[in-house]
Amino acid sequence: MAENTQVLLARRPEGKVRVEDFSIVRSAVPEPGPGEVLLRHLWLSLDPYQRGRMSAAKSYAQPVAVGAVMECRAVARVEKSNDPALKPGDIVLGAYGWQEWSVASPKELMKLDPAEAPVQTALGILGMPGLTAHVGMSDIGQPKRGETVVISAASGAVGAVAGQIAKAEGARVIGIAGGAAKCAYVREELGFDACLDHRDADFIQALDAACPKGVDVYWENVGGAVQRAVFPRLADFARMVMCGMIAEYNDPVPQPGPNLMSAVRKRLRIQGFIVSDSWQRLPEWRAAAIPLIRAGKLRYREDVVDGIEAAPEAFIGLLEGRNFGKLLIKVG
Amino acid sequence: MAENTQVLLARRPEGKVRVEDFSIVRSAVPEPGPGEVLLRHLWLSLDPYQRGRMSAAKSYAQPVAVGAVMECRAVARVEKSNDPALKPGDIVLGAYGWQEWSVASPKELMKLDPAEAPVQTALGILGMPGLTAHVGMSDIGQPKRGETVVISAASGAVGAVAGQIAKAEGARVIGIAGGAAKCAYVREELGFDACLDHRDADFIQALDAACPKGVDVYWENVGGAVQRAVFPRLADFARMVMCGMIAEYNDPVPQPGPNLMSAVRKRLRIQGFIVSDSWQRLPEWRAAAIPLIRAGKLRYREDVVDGIEAAPEAFIGLLEGRNFGKLLIKVG
Repeated sequence: MAENTQVLLARRPEGKVRVEDFSIVRSAVPEPGPGEVLLRHLWLSLDPYQRGRMSAAKSYAQPVAVGAVMECRAVARVEKSNDPALKPGDIVLGAYGWQEWSVASPKELMKLDPAEAPVQTALGILGMPGLTAHVGMSDIGQPKRGETVVISAASGAVGAVAGQIAKAEGARVIGIAGGAAKCAYVREELGFDACLDHRDADFIQALDAACPKGVDVYWENVGGAVQRAVFPRLADFARMVMCGMIAEYNDPVPQPGPNLMSAVRKRLRIQGFIVSDSWQRLPEWRAAAIPLIRAGKLRYREDVVDGIEAAPEAFIGLLEGRNFGKLLIKVG
Repeated sequence: MAENTQVLLARRPEGKVRVEDFSIVRSAVPEPGPGEVLLRHLWLSLDPYQRGRMSAAKSYAQPVAVGAVMECRAVARVEKSNDPALKPGDIVLGAYGWQEWSVASPKELMKLDPAEAPVQTALGILGMPGLTAHVGMSDIGQPKRGETVVISAASGAVGAVAGQIAKAEGARVIGIAGGAAKCAYVREELGFDACLDHRDADFIQALDAACPKGVDVYWENVGGAVQRAVFPRLADFARMVMCGMIAEYNDPVPQPGPNLMSAVRKRLRIQGFIVSDSWQRLPEWRAAAIPLIRAGKLRYREDVVDGIEAAPEAFIGLLEGRNFGKLLIKVG
């Protein structure tokens, strides 16, 4: 019988996440109980929110316990089924953790049609990150024709989609990314009007040049120095879509934020959201996105890392911006 | 012929406003031109936003020029009229500055009916401050039955109305004010569920005790230490109505604000507004408020200072929270 390789949270990170914060263990492949299915994981999704689950701090979701399997969503193949709703060979999406095998109840799973799109897109553009972009842009960003929209982490799984949505609405879309290769991809493949490298010495001047009338919508994925650059450039009535602040997730003590008096003067709307409040809108997003992807009007990029043992290093790279596109671990 | 006593901006304040930042001059009463009216001011409205007009910094409105008459709205009596739309004796509301006389065009003025309400309420509960509370609560705060609403500067012209609106919506309303007399007024006269003195040594503990489930709506009038106390206590999905930050208006350098990651985690909406974007809603507010005032269901308090020479000192007191209720200068 095969073994189940699992990545556990070995300890809570202090500041920067290290590989020593994880442990890799091998255990028996579990047996599905009555009404359950046995799943062979194919693709694991590594996402920034998982950093939050490593900390004991109160948040919108329970932390992962020390010694427990790290949390993630995955795409898997049904190997055994004790429920007529699923049969061996079916491909499903669910939340099962950084491991190769798991058991689950069919009602926790969403069956995927491999003919519709490559199944791993259910973890990226057709899954949580794509839905995040859709919900944040439609509920908070609401870009209008001719407005200037700035997207941080523009080559990432969420930013890439958020920017393409804003572009489709007729906005001028300026990406911010780390490094020339990502910036070229954002401009040339994703079709943003510009993309600025936040590591460039003249980043601030480039931001001013790209946004001569200020920023009407800022999609916040990163926080830190990029937030400090964009915030003072928000235009009157700007919307700041608070999606994440990955550059600060390793900070042991929160950095100060911007003085909020400009929220009064400029009538800003600074609003956060969590995609899990809006799971029920996934079908709406998939129905809109699938034809656009097929028509080549909605692009995405995957950063595939092979084998579960590579997950800790890949996750640390994600927090440091070393991934390029939606980060996936191919495990099956 | 009478003289026109005027208060000019003598210099831009550095930090704290001082009486030396103003000069008091006497000039001739102006003559109305064709189509204009001569106005004898009766009541001047001193409001925190006027601090912003004293600074050269870019804002949503032009600053007052050094050497020019300080800006304010006033209620006045028409003394001479060169326009059939108004006749001597009519009482009007308009924007004319810290002075005793002015000329204006009738189209800039709103005629008041003294039978409807005391005319000076057009500067308070039935004017800009009341409309501010109405717009901010209906557009941003949106308190729901049973929610906890915290109002800073709760005895002030805006806060008193904002809290009474939230109370009428069925919310639990907690005021914050400076000093026992103001807190007693907020509880006993305005009917808030509680009012906390931010100067008390146990203010933070009292805030926790008053808001055991956190704060669903925070009406921000003050900034500074009160903001730092309330912000971490915002509940999931809280709305922070950014109306002003009077405690920081004299700061030469803006204080840091809160780290915004909690806006993501808690799905906060932090939104600012300026009442002058919504002047067209004044009739709607007056129509709603006048019957409530007559029925004793909407209370207000005026802090009346006599004579234009007292305006600079009264304005400095306003910035330091020494007024108690809507600050008015009685000049006629």
